[in-house]
Amino acid sequence: MRPAPARVGDPVDAIDSPALVVEIDAFERNLAAMDAFARSHGVRLRPHAKTHKCSAIALHQVARGAVGVCVQKVGEALALAAGGVRDVFVSNEVIAPTKLARLAALPSDVQLAIAVDSVVGIERLAAAIQASGRQIDVYVEIDAGQGRCGVPAAEAGALARQVVAHDGLRFAGLQAYHGGAQHLRSVAERETAIRQAVAMATAARAAVTSLSIDCPLVTGAGSGSFLLEAASGVYGEIQPGSYAFMDADYARNAPLPGSPRFEHALFVRSQVIARHAAHAVVDAGHKSHAIDSGLPTVWGRNFEFRNGGDEHGLLHPRGDEPLPAMGDTVWLVPGHCDPTVNLHEHLVAVRGGLDRGVVEAVWPIDARGRLD
Amino acid sequence: MRPAPARVGDPVDAIDSPALVVEIDAFERNLAAMDAFARSHGVRLRPHAKTHKCSAIALHQVARGAVGVCVQKVGEALALAAGGVRDVFVSNEVIAPTKLARLAALPSDVQLAIAVDSVVGIERLAAAIQASGRQIDVYVEIDAGQGRCGVPAAEAGALARQVVAHDGLRFAGLQAYHGGAQHLRSVAERETAIRQAVAMATAARAAVTSLSIDCPLVTGAGSGSFLLEAASGVYGEIQPGSYAFMDADYARNAPLPGSPRFEHALFVRSQVIARHAAHAVVDAGHKSHAIDSGLPTVWGRNFEFRNGGDEHGLLHPRGDEPLPAMGDTVWLVPGHCDPTVNLHEHLVAVRGGLDRGVVEAVWPIDARGRLD
Repeated sequence: MRPAPARVGDPVDAIDSPALVVEIDAFERNLAAMDAFARSHGVRLRPHAKTHKCSAIALHQVARGAVGVCVQKVGEALALAAGGVRDVFVSNEVIAPTKLARLAALPSDVQLAIAVDSVVGIERLAAAIQASGRQIDVYVEIDAGQGRCGVPAAEAGALARQVVAHDGLRFAGLQAYHGGAQHLRSVAERETAIRQAVAMATAARAAVTSLSIDCPLVTGAGSGSFLLEAASGVYGEIQPGSYAFMDADYARNAPLPGSPRFEHALFVRSQVIARHAAHAVVDAGHKSHAIDSGLPTVWGRNFEFRNGGDEHGLLHPRGDEPLPAMGDTVWLVPGHCDPTVNLHEHLVAVRGGLDRGVVEAVWPIDARGRLD
Repeated sequence: MRPAPARVGDPVDAIDSPALVVEIDAFERNLAAMDAFARSHGVRLRPHAKTHKCSAIALHQVARGAVGVCVQKVGEALALAAGGVRDVFVSNEVIAPTKLARLAALPSDVQLAIAVDSVVGIERLAAAIQASGRQIDVYVEIDAGQGRCGVPAAEAGALARQVVAHDGLRFAGLQAYHGGAQHLRSVAERETAIRQAVAMATAARAAVTSLSIDCPLVTGAGSGSFLLEAASGVYGEIQPGSYAFMDADYARNAPLPGSPRFEHALFVRSQVIARHAAHAVVDAGHKSHAIDSGLPTVWGRNFEFRNGGDEHGLLHPRGDEPLPAMGDTVWLVPGHCDPTVNLHEHLVAVRGGLDRGVVEAVWPIDARGRLD
């Protein structure tokens, strides 16, 4: 494992490159903005920890008022629980009995929830939970428009009935996340997509309550759309993740009217290792930043970042700014924060800005690589 | 850190998903084919360990006759040296004095080499090496056509003179790798690109020897082009990495005439976690496989793999093959092996095929995440 790229108290220049750096002042403003939004709109906030995979950040979010966190993987739940998080919702389907057994074996003071979208999923979950003697909250996932996991709204009632038939499983409501809507660029496109998601959640809730089963909560929403779900009157909980860090791709969205402002708070610190006639080369490539949502952008400098492969990035001047010198620091804004974080073992939290800041904390990304 | 997804002796069905699996029979045939090629063509083989980041595999390659391995990062050199590898070439530029000091502090029985393409790089390297009292082989990197690192051929002599001026630095030759040529699809395109690379290496060598400096070796080449460099009479060492595993992207190359045959030996074992009217969902997404060179392909089944985001993959039937059942194993061939390996902590080596094989070894990917 890579040693920590900095120590608490280090000046920003002493951070080893490439490293993932959190500009902690911007990060805290992002958290405060989302907290204020959730409070003022009367929705519960359950941030998605697939973004940061970091128990230190999860505990920070909970201390501010989040009800807990979401994860996508049992391994993430185990890692965050080991880090002290006490309320975790696996907002995804889990089928393997071995994984369900690991989840069920978590300490009984960890409040657990999970999503299901099949009878076989419910039966395997029930078997694992029964063996453990604990209780778990179960959300039936509906396909809110993404075409990935989740049943059609009309089938939600039948699955809810399967859930309540099992001791140990508590039907907690509906998971209705429309991932495909988060990066639709225009306000109108996102409004249309979430209007449909809300309609499906409403129909699914009716399908459940028509069977005389209470539907306590509809949960979902991401950083691109949460205002719309919160305003729907149907969703009682939102699950944004990227708002804490922001990334180059989310910054390309047109903001929804009335949206809190979120700032870039996650950066890759890179360093110039070669300099030639028309370009410079930094020591950060696909192994330092994910490119599924595009290449990183260069922060505060007028360079174009071009693909240099797994270990290199190419900087080409866009205006008449001279090329950086050998050894210079170049700050990159990742295209997509979630899979970028998953490439690193540490988040270096810097207080006081990227130019003259000081390392305030080094957070282990303790759920990194927890695909299990 | 994720626990190992399997134990030695496990049947293949017991491997936790998603996991990275090496089909070891195919892997060994790939290694044998490259060993035989290098021997019969009179070139040294120095496989690139940026592909596998695994000291167990590096030692396997060396035991078969490789002279050592290449890496791209000092952190990779440290991790592989800790795993017992005793000959490591950092085929990349390193500028940070802290990194150079870490490299120089490796045990003296580790034979080290490094690439340089600048005076400042040479001076900083010389300072670090002098402080350590050791010797290091230095290769001047030329730009063989990729436009990334490396000097123009005509400047190689001046840098070689800088190298030989420093005690502790031994001028070992030229690094001339054309990364951009490796994935050119047609034979003619790759032949043209490598013909130019060979011409530049020849000119660079002449620039060095015209200063009465011996140029012991030209090294370079990857899995897409190594036959051409080996046939050039100029390159004395080849650096292929991907041949050991192969990936979906390399398989799209037209093979060079006379090329050894390499097989897919690296797979992601995924599992069906949801099944709906027209598609199934597996538990592997961008956090399980890199997509910089395209999505994975589905091995042995007639499904199209569509992007399901960071944690999911969508399977759509292409013919009349029925959708897989819940819990079924689906084997994926990654688009690009190097950054895919970098997402995982373990390689599960299976003997006897993917259907009924048994886990023979679990190799820690001990240089995973070594960006430093």
